[in-house]
Amino acid sequence: MDMNNKGRVTLPTDVDIINETLETMERLGVDALRDCDGTEFPKELLGKGAKVYATYYTTRKDNEWAKNNPDEIQQMYLVTEPETAIGDTLDIELLRDFYKPQFKVNTMHDIKRWWEVIDRTTGEVVPVSHWDYDEETGKVTIKTDKYHEYTVSFLAFIMWDPVHMYNYITNDWKDVPHQMTFDVRQPKTQKYVKDKLAKWCEDNPNVDVVRFTTFFHQFTLNFNDEGKEKFVDWFGYSASISPYILDEFEKEAGYKFRAEYIIDQGYQNNTFRIQSKEFKDFMDFQQREVAKLAKELVDIVHSHGKEAMMFLGDHWIGTEPFGKYFPEIGLDSVVGSVGNGTTLRLISDIPGVRYTEGRFLPYFFPDTFHEGGEPKKEAVENWVTARRAILRSPVDRIGYGGYLKLALEFPDFMDYIESVCNEFRTLYDNIGEGKPYVAPFKVAVLNCWGKIRSWGTYMVAHALWNKKCYSYGGILEALAGMQFDVKFISFEDIKNDKSILDDVGVIINAGSAYTANSGGENWADAEIVTTIKEFVANGGGFIGVGEPSAYEQNGRFFQMASVLGVDRELGFSLSTDKYNWEEKPHFITEQCKDDIDFGEGIKDVYALKNAQVIVNNGGDIEMTANEFGNGRSVYLSGLPYSFENTRILYRSIFWAAGKENEMKKWYSDNINVDVHAYMNTKKYCVVNNTYTKQSTTIYKGDGTAFELDLQENEILWFDM
Amino acid sequence: MDMNNKGRVTLPTDVDIINETLETMERLGVDALRDCDGTEFPKELLGKGAKVYATYYTTRKDNEWAKNNPDEIQQMYLVTEPETAIGDTLDIELLRDFYKPQFKVNTMHDIKRWWEVIDRTTGEVVPVSHWDYDEETGKVTIKTDKYHEYTVSFLAFIMWDPVHMYNYITNDWKDVPHQMTFDVRQPKTQKYVKDKLAKWCEDNPNVDVVRFTTFFHQFTLNFNDEGKEKFVDWFGYSASISPYILDEFEKEAGYKFRAEYIIDQGYQNNTFRIQSKEFKDFMDFQQREVAKLAKELVDIVHSHGKEAMMFLGDHWIGTEPFGKYFPEIGLDSVVGSVGNGTTLRLISDIPGVRYTEGRFLPYFFPDTFHEGGEPKKEAVENWVTARRAILRSPVDRIGYGGYLKLALEFPDFMDYIESVCNEFRTLYDNIGEGKPYVAPFKVAVLNCWGKIRSWGTYMVAHALWNKKCYSYGGILEALAGMQFDVKFISFEDIKNDKSILDDVGVIINAGSAYTANSGGENWADAEIVTTIKEFVANGGGFIGVGEPSAYEQNGRFFQMASVLGVDRELGFSLSTDKYNWEEKPHFITEQCKDDIDFGEGIKDVYALKNAQVIVNNGGDIEMTANEFGNGRSVYLSGLPYSFENTRILYRSIFWAAGKENEMKKWYSDNINVDVHAYMNTKKYCVVNNTYTKQSTTIYKGDGTAFELDLQENEILWFDM
Ligand SMILES: [Mg+2]
Ligand SMILES: [Mg+2]
Ligand SMILES: [Mg+2]
Repeated sequence: MDMNNKGRVTLPTDVDIINETLETMERLGVDALRDCDGTEFPKELLGKGAKVYATYYTTRKDNEWAKNNPDEIQQMYLVTEPETAIGDTLDIELLRDFYKPQFKVNTMHDIKRWWEVIDRTTGEVVPVSHWDYDEETGKVTIKTDKYHEYTVSFLAFIMWDPVHMYNYITNDWKDVPHQMTFDVRQPKTQKYVKDKLAKWCEDNPNVDVVRFTTFFHQFTLNFNDEGKEKFVDWFGYSASISPYILDEFEKEAGYKFRAEYIIDQGYQNNTFRIQSKEFKDFMDFQQREVAKLAKELVDIVHSHGKEAMMFLGDHWIGTEPFGKYFPEIGLDSVVGSVGNGTTLRLISDIPGVRYTEGRFLPYFFPDTFHEGGEPKKEAVENWVTARRAILRSPVDRIGYGGYLKLALEFPDFMDYIESVCNEFRTLYDNIGEGKPYVAPFKVAVLNCWGKIRSWGTYMVAHALWNKKCYSYGGILEALAGMQFDVKFISFEDIKNDKSILDDVGVIINAGSAYTANSGGENWADAEIVTTIKEFVANGGGFIGVGEPSAYEQNGRFFQMASVLGVDRELGFSLSTDKYNWEEKPHFITEQCKDDIDFGEGIKDVYALKNAQVIVNNGGDIEMTANEFGNGRSVYLSGLPYSFENTRILYRSIFWAAGKENEMKKWYSDNINVDVHAYMNTKKYCVVNNTYTKQSTTIYKGDGTAFELDLQENEILWFDM
Repeated sequence: MDMNNKGRVTLPTDVDIINETLETMERLGVDALRDCDGTEFPKELLGKGAKVYATYYTTRKDNEWAKNNPDEIQQMYLVTEPETAIGDTLDIELLRDFYKPQFKVNTMHDIKRWWEVIDRTTGEVVPVSHWDYDEETGKVTIKTDKYHEYTVSFLAFIMWDPVHMYNYITNDWKDVPHQMTFDVRQPKTQKYVKDKLAKWCEDNPNVDVVRFTTFFHQFTLNFNDEGKEKFVDWFGYSASISPYILDEFEKEAGYKFRAEYIIDQGYQNNTFRIQSKEFKDFMDFQQREVAKLAKELVDIVHSHGKEAMMFLGDHWIGTEPFGKYFPEIGLDSVVGSVGNGTTLRLISDIPGVRYTEGRFLPYFFPDTFHEGGEPKKEAVENWVTARRAILRSPVDRIGYGGYLKLALEFPDFMDYIESVCNEFRTLYDNIGEGKPYVAPFKVAVLNCWGKIRSWGTYMVAHALWNKKCYSYGGILEALAGMQFDVKFISFEDIKNDKSILDDVGVIINAGSAYTANSGGENWADAEIVTTIKEFVANGGGFIGVGEPSAYEQNGRFFQMASVLGVDRELGFSLSTDKYNWEEKPHFITEQCKDDIDFGEGIKDVYALKNAQVIVNNGGDIEMTANEFGNGRSVYLSGLPYSFENTRILYRSIFWAAGKENEMKKWYSDNINVDVHAYMNTKKYCVVNNTYTKQSTTIYKGDGTAFELDLQENEILWFDM
């Protein structure tokens, strides 16, 4: 175990716990130390064998600059709530429903050019001559049609950085000045920020790693009149704009930008919306420009002999790691927060960096580390949940954040994370450079986004639970720890090059009707539909979850109904008798014991004539299997994450691929236990994902089997 | 009670129970006797003081004529199930999924003119040069695009009348020849049928009432390859066509008819579909032509001194009693089957006839009248359920069907229906000619159909239960027995003349999104939206049930969201935080005790900021109240029929109308008991709708109250 007692671990420190830090470094094998929001890095810890990370903010923590350059403060497109005109005019107070300290209405730029008043009853733009803005009252007055509803889309300066505000409110900070924002994309600020970074690098020779938090544009996050979160889209571009940027965009795009390209009926092009052409153009422009500028900052860092690390979050818009331009930034590494297996893969699968680092939970903050808190319990859950995914695709380092002082008061917690650090180093060594054993076909997750939203498909606000997401999110969480190569593909990818399906065994399409996940209008495209039908007819598998391929036309809601063997009754075909309701046992559910949890489920799904009904929930079909040509299809009404559902998906994939016989390779009969094999190191492990003892039969790659007992959470390593 | 012991009752008879019939006539006060399918009218009962009804079939029971005039056999537009082309051609066997004895493919008329092959992947019509039909194999061969889906719409002769077939199969008849159909609209048959009717009238001088079953066109009903019902729409026009009729239609309409105008993507323009312009044109043409021809038959009947009665069902397409042309037929009466309060009103509200008659359940058939059967129980339930509606709008007569012989073997049943006959005569006399007391405003049910579907709004196959209907059907069943004037209005009515809303206190819009009930594209019409918003803002009420005003556009799903105070989350606005989840008590639910039954409900409905949440079912909002201008709105996710839900609707209506203070007039505090007042006869009744004793407080019209106990099912009459 000697080789595994040092390295790959980052720890926070502070000026008041120097000796304790040194002891803990030794104990946990820490090889990097970091500062943290509200801490300072002690000189005494320099040269103690640990790399030094320093957080760096490009867009805030310099109110002086912001105050002196009000025209280059960051901006956000905002939209008012729809209001009904009772008479011939309507006054709309722009910031009525927003947290006023967050925003200042931008009247510096031509409001008639950049704002839009829209009649939301007809969808028409109100002519600029029909409205005016009064700076005194903060109200737009509109000449209206009676009983029509109106919104105003407008530009506002971000007077308080939303993340700073979030931390301020969450941690109940007092007497801390609100951090203003500035826009690094604009000329004055750009020069200023570059010079400042260069100077900072000079002034901080002992910093090894500059951790950018992050680059330029905050994901969309704003607050309501009570200071509560009003709108959040972790992927959102609403705060990435300014007339300066939009002018540049227009030069390239050759058409006029409209506020509505961002506002999108009030949905603000969130990640569940199917992207308009204009929004796609804008995203591409932003990603390219952000990558170009971010590279300049990274080059400055490199020129000072330091590494550049990006935090995956906050001002990360334009730097999406699975996007086209990300590798051009030239970052050394990405660090991100690990909430579960899905968010682990969101980090560990990032291409184009030398290493990735996962920040594990809990943060050493008083919300967990107080008397009566259970930090160890949280740490165990976080580690065991993420470990499934680490064993498929490891991050290269792990680490923690917060105040070390607090953690040290919980010896059982420190004991546990010591064991985690050792366990991580062991598994990292055992995995080696190669890839773990995977099934002999790929699984493709098909939606409107494809690669750029790899593992980020069902997220509103990073890993937070959402009623409309969890029944789909379970698919990714299950896949994150499964022995499949997963690729995220878009409808556009298929249209561009059908050979993208050549190595795919099973396509998964999952989501709510008409969302970017399900695909909406793409299913009205005969090329898409026939390509996928051909794929299945030739032996491929298609798994639909929720409202797959939903687009109501030509007598069908699910355009892949004939493949799926199900459609959804919208109320148009009540006159058509349906007779296929009887449940029959199936390979997929052989290991299910109780009622299956489909989560939110979908009502009114019915089976077509030849499909096999597996689960009928009182007239709502929740699971079917179907054959189409030489291929197979499975329908699931939803799949929240659980070990049982993970196994259901596992069996569904092998069955849909027509490869049931390949299933019992590096396989555990017990659904709570996983097996992973690493050919290049000739090692394999058996891992108990539960907090109780487990017994299981393990199948090796040659099909031979043996019995095994495991302790709680245990991971056992074997030579092949 | 003397005045109430005779009249208003029709009984079936047969040749083998002459004396028993006479005794029963006396006992029940029967004043009309009828034959029945499979019975014969005994001469001995002529001149015994009872009118004689005779069923008359215009379109069948004459196979000789059908066989000799194969070109005038009735036809139906049929469509095959969608099939996928795997290669460059596809064979579709037209009758594969149909019950073959029911149909004969019509090749007599130009198939390239009247049939349509449609690519259901693109929605395009396949050129007629790309397909051919082989009479030998019964298959259409199509030149296809690979992996596209195709359907064939074609004409078939109806070789076995669907109702005859249904009775044949249901009653397990043997050795009965399949009754063929013929089309009275076509020239040869038309002349033949008229002459035959005239002759029949001459030959049957003792028949007083000719009961047409019915006129010319059967509602859509066909059977699958196993002889089970395949498609049923009680309102459907698919079986009302022939090239002869379509040629006539084209002359009038001035455009070419397409099979797709009937087939409608396979939905076949069923009553839940929003009518296309062409389908509306065709319905109007058919109703007009049917009325004209039906009038000729009625005139023949009248010219022989007989009455003409129509059965509400079977071949009733074109004679819809709430349609524009119905009164022109000149019928004396309509008789129909009474399944519940809604179907009672479907009969009793018919305008333009001298009297209506309800046929009550159970039929005297062996399925109920066998050892161990409980005919009395069925009769009690049927009567008590229908009585609520009769007290609002009475049919003029009641009656029974089937084999009297069977009923006589159940003395408790005969005792009960004797009491029903007396009770009916009493209430009929007490109601008199005037209208019962109604609240001082009307309730309008708004959908795409309006008046023509009065009380028939949520029916697939007459009164049969349907999963997607029962949660809306409860609204009409509740209204059928409530003290409101109900009018059924269409969006078109509103556009034609807004004054249709002048006497309306509350508008109800209820149904699944995009169906004819909810309204679909009508909610994209600013004129509709603003008219109804203005109606509410000026003090009107709007009650939405299920997916009211659903049409996804301009950032809303429910276009009346600002009025309703709710919208439905389709997955586009997950980024927008929603904070209004807390249930608060409300006037509407003051009398609710347990969990409210919303039926199927609607998932993912959320409340807007200022709405009052009344019921939140784990994140799905099921009931809200909202204010808009001077008006009010109530949202309900569904309303299956029950006494509690009836009271919820009652209170919702009074609250939405802003007339809560008017509620306790002719009102019972106990939800199981109704009060109805008749001003012209100065009578009022209190009626126990349950099978147990009830105690209640009764409020009279002046607000004074008294306590009252009632026996099971009891109805008590009082003078004012
Ligand atoms: Mg990696
Ligand atoms: Mg469910
Ligand atoms: Mg009447």
